Amino acid sequence: MYYGYFNGAIAPTDQLAIGVTDLSLLRGYGLFDYFLTYNGRPFQWDWYWERFQNSASRMHLPLPLGKDETYAVVMNLVERSNNAIRTSGLATPIDVGFRFVLTGGYSADSISVVRPNLLIMAEPIHPVPLVQYELGIKVILDDYVREMAEVKSTDYKRVILMAEAIRAARASDLLYQKGGEISELSRSNFFLVKGDRLITPDKHILHGITRKTIIQLAQSDFKVEERTVLLSELYDADEAFTTSSTKRVLPVTQIGDLTIGDGHVGPKSKFLLERFDELVKAW
Amino acid sequence: MYYGYFNGAIAPTDQLAIGVTDLSLLRGYGLFDYFLTYNGRPFQWDWYWERFQNSASRMHLPLPLGKDETYAVVMNLVERSNNAIRTSGLATPIDVGFRFVLTGGYSADSISVVRPNLLIMAEPIHPVPLVQYELGIKVILDDYVREMAEVKSTDYKRVILMAEAIRAARASDLLYQKGGEISELSRSNFFLVKGDRLITPDKHILHGITRKTIIQLAQSDFKVEERTVLLSELYDADEAFTTSSTKRVLPVTQIGDLTIGDGHVGPKSKFLLERFDELVKAW
Repeated sequence: MYYGYFNGAIAPTDQLAIGVTDLSLLRGYGLFDYFLTYNGRPFQWDWYWERFQNSASRMHLPLPLGKDETYAVVMNLVERSNNAIRTSGLATPIDVGFRFVLTGGYSADSISVVRPNLLIMAEPIHPVPLVQYELGIKVILDDYVREMAEVKSTDYKRVILMAEAIRAARASDLLYQKGGEISELSRSNFFLVKGDRLITPDKHILHGITRKTIIQLAQSDFKVEERTVLLSELYDADEAFTTSSTKRVLPVTQIGDLTIGDGHVGPKSKFLLERFDELVKAW
Repeated sequence: MYYGYFNGAIAPTDQLAIGVTDLSLLRGYGLFDYFLTYNGRPFQWDWYWERFQNSASRMHLPLPLGKDETYAVVMNLVERSNNAIRTSGLATPIDVGFRFVLTGGYSADSISVVRPNLLIMAEPIHPVPLVQYELGIKVILDDYVREMAEVKSTDYKRVILMAEAIRAARASDLLYQKGGEISELSRSNFFLVKGDRLITPDKHILHGITRKTIIQLAQSDFKVEERTVLLSELYDADEAFTTSSTKRVLPVTQIGDLTIGDGHVGPKSKFLLERFDELVKAW
């Protein structure tokens, strides 16, 4: 059983509910963030908090809790969820995902923001199937760019709307492009490898914390280029991969009908995944 | 006190709540519709139902209730809300607003749709202040176009995000334009009057039921043009107005720094508002 926090109260997640006049429900006005714990500790907490705060500020929503208070809630939920999940005397902490959701709050006229609602949930982590790391994934191109992509708003309509098209193509996700410029996958960032160059889009993207971590880890072995990336650059890429908190470094071996490199998971993607896994192991 | 329906249960609206794993909350995946009753009867019920059904189909969400079952729920809520609101032996029904919300439903992995959640709420009607019909309203131009505008998704982030800019300009709303083409206001359609021509955008808009009603009512007195409308056409318009279920026919007399016509509410706008009010009076 996992626990959550809603506006000051803590309860098992399946007992938490939000009133039906909330602006996220009525008007799509909400933002969120998501991170994991490793060894019971929130991964890159400072960076996630900074991004959450930035999203809130960009959407003009005052944060009901400060950083330290929020951290205390997070650790409280880690402990409660761990106590509830453990059936034996396990010594190692069970890691969880954390979802923060900040909404426009309850609104009498269904348009005016009065006071935001804050939800913090501990969740089971849904790991990516191992076979996807061995074979890489297929994605399909989608002519789309996220509105206010740099803000982690709750607007993820597009990928749900395209679920059937993704399944029909036997793909795992969408790769967004607009006017020939690549931005990101539906919920993760995108990288290309060409020789010792690591190339990743810098516009119309969510600035992923895993992306930032990988760029740091790559500094000594790659020439990192954060810049506009054109569709045409896919054709001579050696490798491609996507990054997110749950995907870590996940190879992309096919994009629509195009095979990336030789179609196998490449050594540079493996190398960066290993670096990342070493970092989190010692977190 | 107003009543609402949620997945089969009916209760006062302030007692209705939705679980926190709903995809409208987590991913902005939801759609809605809104209409009024006149003389206790849903206005243009057939058209609203058709649009709601169409939005649901476009977002791949199966409707949990059929048309007749839904109508029965609506009339049940009208009666309950009326009984609860009445303090004396009033004979005339109190009219209400109805909000239908259909969401992606609860999702264990926060992305997959399993079964939609359906919410139907009776609400108090928030009438437009009379002075706005006498003086007309000011709107400001916004370089924006709604994603999937023809679907009444819950995505109304933009107008909430721009609330401060609207206030600062002493305006009432936004008029969206992209590349010099006008689409709509944030929650209502847009019309121009030039001589005996009634002109309204036909693309990137929500196909408003009040818009459709006005076009019907205007047939015998106007030449109606549904087509692309350019920003440049604002300069020689005689009148402008906006339509929605709550705004009916609301004159727009100023757009940013531009005064429309002579800056007063024009006779054609008044004429169409009168025709509309006659129609609903006899509904």
